[in-house]
Amino acid sequence: MRTQVAIVGGGPAGLLLAQLLQTQGIETIVLERYERDDVLSRIRAAVLERGLTDLLHEAGVGAPLEDGGLVHDGIRIAGGGHDFRIDLKALTGSSVTIYGQERVTQDLYAARDAMGLSTLHGCAGMKPHDIDSDQPYLTFLHGGQMNRLDCDFIAGCDGFHGPCRKELPDDTAQAFEQTFPFGWLGVTSDAPPVVEEFLYAGSERGFALCSLQDGERGRYYLQVPLSDSPEEWEDERIWEELARRLPADVANALPGGALSGRDIAPLRSFVSEPMHWGRMFLCGDAAHIVPPTGAKGLNTAASDVQYLYHALTRHYRDGDDAGLKAYSQTALARTWKTQRFSWWMTNLLHRFPAQTAFDLKMQRADLAYLAGSEAAQTTLAENYVGLSY
Amino acid sequence: MRTQVAIVGGGPAGLLLAQLLQTQGIETIVLERYERDDVLSRIRAAVLERGLTDLLHEAGVGAPLEDGGLVHDGIRIAGGGHDFRIDLKALTGSSVTIYGQERVTQDLYAARDAMGLSTLHGCAGMKPHDIDSDQPYLTFLHGGQMNRLDCDFIAGCDGFHGPCRKELPDDTAQAFEQTFPFGWLGVTSDAPPVVEEFLYAGSERGFALCSLQDGERGRYYLQVPLSDSPEEWEDERIWEELARRLPADVANALPGGALSGRDIAPLRSFVSEPMHWGRMFLCGDAAHIVPPTGAKGLNTAASDVQYLYHALTRHYRDGDDAGLKAYSQTALARTWKTQRFSWWMTNLLHRFPAQTAFDLKMQRADLAYLAGSEAAQTTLAENYVGLSY
Repeated sequence: MRTQVAIVGGGPAGLLLAQLLQTQGIETIVLERYERDDVLSRIRAAVLERGLTDLLHEAGVGAPLEDGGLVHDGIRIAGGGHDFRIDLKALTGSSVTIYGQERVTQDLYAARDAMGLSTLHGCAGMKPHDIDSDQPYLTFLHGGQMNRLDCDFIAGCDGFHGPCRKELPDDTAQAFEQTFPFGWLGVTSDAPPVVEEFLYAGSERGFALCSLQDGERGRYYLQVPLSDSPEEWEDERIWEELARRLPADVANALPGGALSGRDIAPLRSFVSEPMHWGRMFLCGDAAHIVPPTGAKGLNTAASDVQYLYHALTRHYRDGDDAGLKAYSQTALARTWKTQRFSWWMTNLLHRFPAQTAFDLKMQRADLAYLAGSEAAQTTLAENYVGLSY
Repeated sequence: MRTQVAIVGGGPAGLLLAQLLQTQGIETIVLERYERDDVLSRIRAAVLERGLTDLLHEAGVGAPLEDGGLVHDGIRIAGGGHDFRIDLKALTGSSVTIYGQERVTQDLYAARDAMGLSTLHGCAGMKPHDIDSDQPYLTFLHGGQMNRLDCDFIAGCDGFHGPCRKELPDDTAQAFEQTFPFGWLGVTSDAPPVVEEFLYAGSERGFALCSLQDGERGRYYLQVPLSDSPEEWEDERIWEELARRLPADVANALPGGALSGRDIAPLRSFVSEPMHWGRMFLCGDAAHIVPPTGAKGLNTAASDVQYLYHALTRHYRDGDDAGLKAYSQTALARTWKTQRFSWWMTNLLHRFPAQTAFDLKMQRADLAYLAGSEAAQTTLAENYVGLSY
């Protein structure tokens, strides 16, 4: 087998890159470890930046998003005795779109099907070879035999646990990491959302997020100790804890009832540098992880994809490799700003076991300043709707 | 002796309060531990917020400031590969005024002399009594004998080490503190300043500040370990270290030569709550200390003075005690925002012994974001020129 760009990973990042390259007549093959149904079962609420929705339109998959996405012009923040709305639209001119990550993936598969392009699912033991040569290739087990895929470039869209990052030379790759001393318990309610816009609460008892899975179902998050297990959190206990952490108007409106999709996710900041080696380029979780507080995971993957898409287009169309050479630096510059925002917003709203009385005062002062300063609200808003690519 | 408002401390905060109250016909007596020449020898560069210059005009001591103050419309920040100007004036409509703190004090003494008002210098063992009664008084040693000053109110403008804060009941007062693990070595050069505006440098080797004592003399600061002593830092070593930390254009212009006023000051954030008990009110360093990075020490004292001045005026003129009752809360709300800014700017520009590789990346990302975002620059600018009272 041979293709121009071999894409490792059939999640939203890999599929979006494939779709965008297809619009420029650049040939791709997507290899994915899991089956399609498994990929589509990764249900996560997503807050889509304007840059990402633009990219989805450019990739020809914007129509379902127009129908099913919920446009949000603001968010609400409560904490430290303050309770205020950040008017994203007024402060930046942009909004965000609420749309499940699995629906983005589904739309991309549907577009791929419509074009007759295939994705190889169930590829085991994928491994990039000779990435620092002009003739890189991948080997993988599929259909009971070992396969080889030759290509011009490898795009590693294979997530944090994928094989691509591991191919960076040990003396070159550098990892930067911070683990937060708590997790997020997330649950979906069958009852309609109780808020129209996301509500971020930094209460004395810890963080809570009141959000939407979609227009019909509410999605809720609670900061919990990492030592907790989801089973310890029965429905009733979750509703009670949410009521304690959320402002009264929302606490009183909580519907109660059955909760599903219960899991506890750790919060971590992680960046691996560089994001490019030889003929291999990393995108999204393969190179970096953000804590979910700023809702930046998928969006940061999308900005990587955008940079790589333009760089590969320049290569194939103009014979110009400047974008490819600059890719790691360009993508990392934006990634670090996104990491900064996610880290700041996490610090703003969570309780930390090692927080001193002075630290708590600084956290409250941060909230007080944010509540009263248009400039401070603009910094939050411009990051939340997404920094320019 | 009897007066309406007994002011403990004849530094700039106490003198400014006395002068402002005098404009409203409110009688004060100022008690100061040290002699006048000693008070005036406390030489510190000062960046005066618009609010403070307005207050000095209101107190009738604005004229010398108009002549001798240097109006600065911007500051320069270098660090993490960025080097940019924050245009204070364009971003906020306000500027700051560079004017020595000792000159503020001198102008206030001159105005006091002109009005024939006196300050009791050399008061030892000052102690407030019965502050939670309607008849508070102070005792102190002066002229070889114990004196008693009866008053309606006591204003504690007596600095961090003064006697007033100690009178807060132990079960009521709460202190919040953070000590930074380094100090500032400060020196004054006889040579003219090499910069027209303050230059804050967050270099790999630590922080450096290139500033002005006044129009004729440069003033320089270096982040140094607290274990260093000023004697270890000879003139030549200071110039060399400044050259390593400052951008090339400034490093190459450093004049060299003799340096004076050499000292190492620790960096500390400190707030004591409440700032009011009974008939005693604390202003300035008596209640809070900021690290010098944001140049907020004198300005925060001035905002306290402004609140207390208006509250006392309402009391004597209108018989309305609302301002006095709200004083602690009002002053603390602004103080904590100023603490937040000073703490943030200190974190932005210094090297910390315990900084991880990830922390360093966040610091660089903060600088990168600040360099590129008008909203972020506006948050810095609006704090630097001073939040509204």
